[in-house]
Amino acid sequence: MANNDIIIKALRAVGEEDAEYLVSLIGSTPGFPKEGIIFRDFMPVLADARGLDILMRGFAATLPVAPEDFDVVAGLESRGFLFGPALASRFGKGFVAIRKAGKLPPPVFAESYDLEYGSASVEVEQNAIHPGERVLIVDDLIATGGTARAGADLIKKAGGIVAGFSFLMELDGLDGCSRLSEAPISTLIAMPA
Amino acid sequence: MANNDIIIKALRAVGEEDAEYLVSLIGSTPGFPKEGIIFRDFMPVLADARGLDILMRGFAATLPVAPEDFDVVAGLESRGFLFGPALASRFGKGFVAIRKAGKLPPPVFAESYDLEYGSASVEVEQNAIHPGERVLIVDDLIATGGTARAGADLIKKAGGIVAGFSFLMELDGLDGCSRLSEAPISTLIAMPA
Repeated sequence: MANNDIIIKALRAVGEEDAEYLVSLIGSTPGFPKEGIIFRDFMPVLADARGLDILMRGFAATLPVAPEDFDVVAGLESRGFLFGPALASRFGKGFVAIRKAGKLPPPVFAESYDLEYGSASVEVEQNAIHPGERVLIVDDLIATGGTARAGADLIKKAGGIVAGFSFLMELDGLDGCSRLSEAPISTLIAMPA
Repeated sequence: MANNDIIIKALRAVGEEDAEYLVSLIGSTPGFPKEGIIFRDFMPVLADARGLDILMRGFAATLPVAPEDFDVVAGLESRGFLFGPALASRFGKGFVAIRKAGKLPPPVFAESYDLEYGSASVEVEQNAIHPGERVLIVDDLIATGGTARAGADLIKKAGGIVAGFSFLMELDGLDGCSRLSEAPISTLIAMPA
């Protein structure tokens, strides 16, 4: 049902023909990066001029909040970097990079999160977000929602307000969106996990 | 001298006032990521709406080849991802991701390059570039040119033609551009290393 909603949203955003073309470019690689996982690959979408245009239009048309209701876009390293600055630029906003630990010069805010084995942390520069700024968080994919959850907590730690989440792709059945209940979420495409 | 040329280019591209504003946003952190290095940080440029707009206009205005003389943009993980898709989208081209080893699903082409200690490799999907496609390679920074050199060799291995290189920033005195003599290069800003 949620799946259908999302497909309808994508179709509304870019039209049926473009939506079908977009989905036809997405690759699927079983067993990558490990046994039991089907890797959904949108790099062929980006590599295709028409595919990239449809994708960016779709992203822009399905934002979870109106452009006047966020101040800045934040993107998660590294695939969030593929869409974040382009989206920010399109709407006349700035872009804040949420990076893996150790990549940004000090001082930074940091937020740890659990991985299947061990943990990782993400960082943002301390002067990147002004107090009370409303932040749209962008990434390519939402699966279990762990990274996006850490990104949102980091934005709050940095003094920002999470205005919404925008993902290119949602993996069905992993319930990642339930971990991001504080703000509206949009996803352009839903795929089986 | 090359430095002056580059500064003049940036000024021509965006005008003196905007060029000064852009440069004023660039951060400098001595001793990061290690002793003896001054880290030049353009994340504050991106985080500022006007800064990002100037940067993207500057990038677009200083391309080393005309839009009709390249077919696709390629960007190096992960900071090349910040500009590549936005530039490609602006000129109606596709975007090809050059990623660190192990991130892209097989089959890939790979190219190794030397680091200060040891080596690394970059990869591109085998179907990403069509034979004879002219590729504009984009990254944030050119220092010694090692990564860009590997990226260019990878594009050729994948059947593409390197049409040009476009960097946001050049570090003076490291002579990185001399390693990329096969195609024209543009850089928007030059900074002391």
